[in-house]
Amino acid sequence: MHILVTNDDGVMAPGLLALAKTMREIGEVSIVAPEINWSASGHVKTMHRPLRVREVILQDGTKALSSDGAPSDCVALALLGLLPKPIDLVVSGINPNANIGHDVTYSGTVTAAMEAMITGSLPAIAVSVDGPDNHGAPLDFSAAALVAKQVVKLVLAKGMPKGVFLNVNVPYLPFEQIKGFRVTRQGLRVYRDSLDKRIDPRGRPYYWIGGESPTAIPEEGTDYGAISHGYVSITPLQLDLTAWSAIGDLEQWEWS
Amino acid sequence: MHILVTNDDGVMAPGLLALAKTMREIGEVSIVAPEINWSASGHVKTMHRPLRVREVILQDGTKALSSDGAPSDCVALALLGLLPKPIDLVVSGINPNANIGHDVTYSGTVTAAMEAMITGSLPAIAVSVDGPDNHGAPLDFSAAALVAKQVVKLVLAKGMPKGVFLNVNVPYLPFEQIKGFRVTRQGLRVYRDSLDKRIDPRGRPYYWIGGESPTAIPEEGTDYGAISHGYVSITPLQLDLTAWSAIGDLEQWEWS
Repeated sequence: MHILVTNDDGVMAPGLLALAKTMREIGEVSIVAPEINWSASGHVKTMHRPLRVREVILQDGTKALSSDGAPSDCVALALLGLLPKPIDLVVSGINPNANIGHDVTYSGTVTAAMEAMITGSLPAIAVSVDGPDNHGAPLDFSAAALVAKQVVKLVLAKGMPKGVFLNVNVPYLPFEQIKGFRVTRQGLRVYRDSLDKRIDPRGRPYYWIGGESPTAIPEEGTDYGAISHGYVSITPLQLDLTAWSAIGDLEQWEWS
Repeated sequence: MHILVTNDDGVMAPGLLALAKTMREIGEVSIVAPEINWSASGHVKTMHRPLRVREVILQDGTKALSSDGAPSDCVALALLGLLPKPIDLVVSGINPNANIGHDVTYSGTVTAAMEAMITGSLPAIAVSVDGPDNHGAPLDFSAAALVAKQVVKLVLAKGMPKGVFLNVNVPYLPFEQIKGFRVTRQGLRVYRDSLDKRIDPRGRPYYWIGGESPTAIPEEGTDYGAISHGYVSITPLQLDLTAWSAIGDLEQWEWS
């Protein structure tokens, strides 16, 4: 069992090390992750420039590879031949913020799992914890790491359904206080972005996409509904965005 | 009617100008597009750095705004207040390559339309033409521009179904040779990427994600099925990636 671990917060992020350590209890682990933070970077395939890869040593002495590409590039690199040994499963995370609702197309954590499915047809799991704003201090990833281990073991025992990857979100609670697991649907994020226009020291404007942190609708049966009530949410995702319900209507339009 | 035009090939791309010109026949047009090519850049929300905006003049004298953000950032900027007047509709393109199958989460053209729906709840349309490799010479976007005008007029007349945006792909044919329109589902891309390892003049390796151009499965009822038979494909997309068919199975797993 050869497990690829990646993330979108950068190879030195504590969430990645927590995930790598727990995955090592299941199989051999290779790490290929971005040099820098690629949060909300989307599903990237870098084709206009070459990618560099460096060997780095993590805090506990673990050897890892970092690249100057996006999380999805790291997965593509690993699966297309950077690593000599074939990968069996890809786990991405642990992201220090939940990836729920519409986050899934922005999220580097989730799009890394997408890439594993597209490029490698591999079982892939994105793991995020609904962490608080800790003002830069590292979170406690131990409960989410235990959850990740349970999920991966279950995926290995049961087999991932065809064309599916898992988006796992964990409430920020001590492991024994987590109420259990819920299989959920993708919920609805409520973004509260606003534009913050500022003037630089040379008198020229620049713009931050700012505003308040997003919220979400804690509806029963959704990802956010589960984590907001203390459950791990397991959302099976797939890559077909077809709006099936609209096809009948659109076929009635006078197209020609 | 105030239409925002954007793209992922950069503000100076001929496909954007062709689209802006044809949209001007329907309403007032504002352009906010990336300074540079962001193809396959994914759904980005740039939060770790501020964005710059510049006024630029297109080939025919049209005024436009460019930003150093991704296509989805350009849409967010425009909708969050960069443009003083509210936007009614967002059109992205014309991309010189088809955006079909799994392309939709990578594509800057398509993710710009996603952003319009998420940030502005606006009707949004991504337009791409299945252009040949023209070795750098510009394509003829006239047929795709006429198609874009027809689609936008129909959307304005009928109203976009709630929670839906359109992914439009046009075969590269003279307008009168296009056989008609097909309402389609998202098909299957077949990527043929490979890793191309090279050594730089200083003896250090670098990696291109290379390989052959992707193909796709020309299945009846899909985006690629339509364009490969000479029809415009109109694929209604939505943002819920839930793998509904897997939920029942996953609920049977022994989660705790």
